[in-house]
Amino acid sequence: ESRLPGFATHQVGVAGAVVDESNGKVLVVQDRNKTKNAWKFPGGLSDPGENIGATAVREVFEETGVRSEFRSLLSIRQQHNHPGAFGMSDMYIICRLSPLTYDINFCTQECLRCEWLDLTELAKTKETTPITSRIARLLLRGLELGFDNIDLTMEELPAVYSGMFYQLYHRQLPPTLKS
Amino acid sequence: ESRLPGFATHQVGVAGAVVDESNGKVLVVQDRNKTKNAWKFPGGLSDPGENIGATAVREVFEETGVRSEFRSLLSIRQQHNHPGAFGMSDMYIICRLSPLTYDINFCTQECLRCEWLDLTELAKTKETTPITSRIARLLLRGLELGFDNIDLTMEELPAVYSGMFYQLYHRQLPPTLKS
Repeated sequence: ESRLPGFATHQVGVAGAVVDESNGKVLVVQDRNKTKNAWKFPGGLSDPGENIGATAVREVFEETGVRSEFRSLLSIRQQHNHPGAFGMSDMYIICRLSPLTYDINFCTQECLRCEWLDLTELAKTKETTPITSRIARLLLRGLELGFDNIDLTMEELPAVYSGMFYQLYHRQLPPTLKS
Repeated sequence: ESRLPGFATHQVGVAGAVVDESNGKVLVVQDRNKTKNAWKFPGGLSDPGENIGATAVREVFEETGVRSEFRSLLSIRQQHNHPGAFGMSDMYIICRLSPLTYDINFCTQECLRCEWLDLTELAKTKETTPITSRIARLLLRGLELGFDNIDLTMEELPAVYSGMFYQLYHRQLPPTLKS
């Protein structure tokens, strides 16, 4: 945790997979400005100082009109020389969210379509990205065996020197092993 | 995965927990320039364009002289206004590594001490940071129940538009569910 002074090298993007556990559907969008219409999870770039979960919830609401709450972190992608990132590297994080509302009111500037789609269909369709397809299969496994099999849970812990708090994500530990 | 052009907001630091499964020991260091001497995992900032696992392996070797190989991603910490980060946010990632060599030849400029320490001792001692202590307990659980209980495994997948590859980390899926 010690460091020499560095500089920011990564932009951080966050997507939210809002899963309706009552019917096995997940909220997906198709971008307006892409040549290939592929289903994906709503998301976007973190604002400076914004927590991962807050970005996911905000972006899902801005794109789809659906309100949700953060549950866990599912996956991380690191990509260098990302076409949209102008030489920066890109950290793309996918979170699992639970819906608080269900009515879709999507942003027509950003999205062409927005639907609650069956996870089984999302896991099968070719009209999606490799990463979305992979996460759909991960979520199906979570629905079947319990989300504790696929989740990284979040906790806030105090920083040693500053007295501030940070967010730590890892596999759930039994309460007796936490401190 | 769509984005408006952004800018880099995060520095990425990576630490490597090198676990010797034959005896339950882990490689830890104490920084030379800290007031509190706390055991922690060796690590440092990613170079531009460097993969997470490569940073962990490189930093472990530079600090300790131990060669290792990447096994999995264990934990992520997000911290804003990090004291060493000058207003940037900080993404700190802890990886699990396996040792390829065992002899310690540590960097005396960076480190005061370097040892193979029992994970049980690291999990108990007060001479460590909260995050190191937590990860020690996570690793003990991995030793006991199998590391597949705590790991996020890495795979390379092709990017849709650029034809380049990216690294995706998530909980292991059975091979039949991967594609």
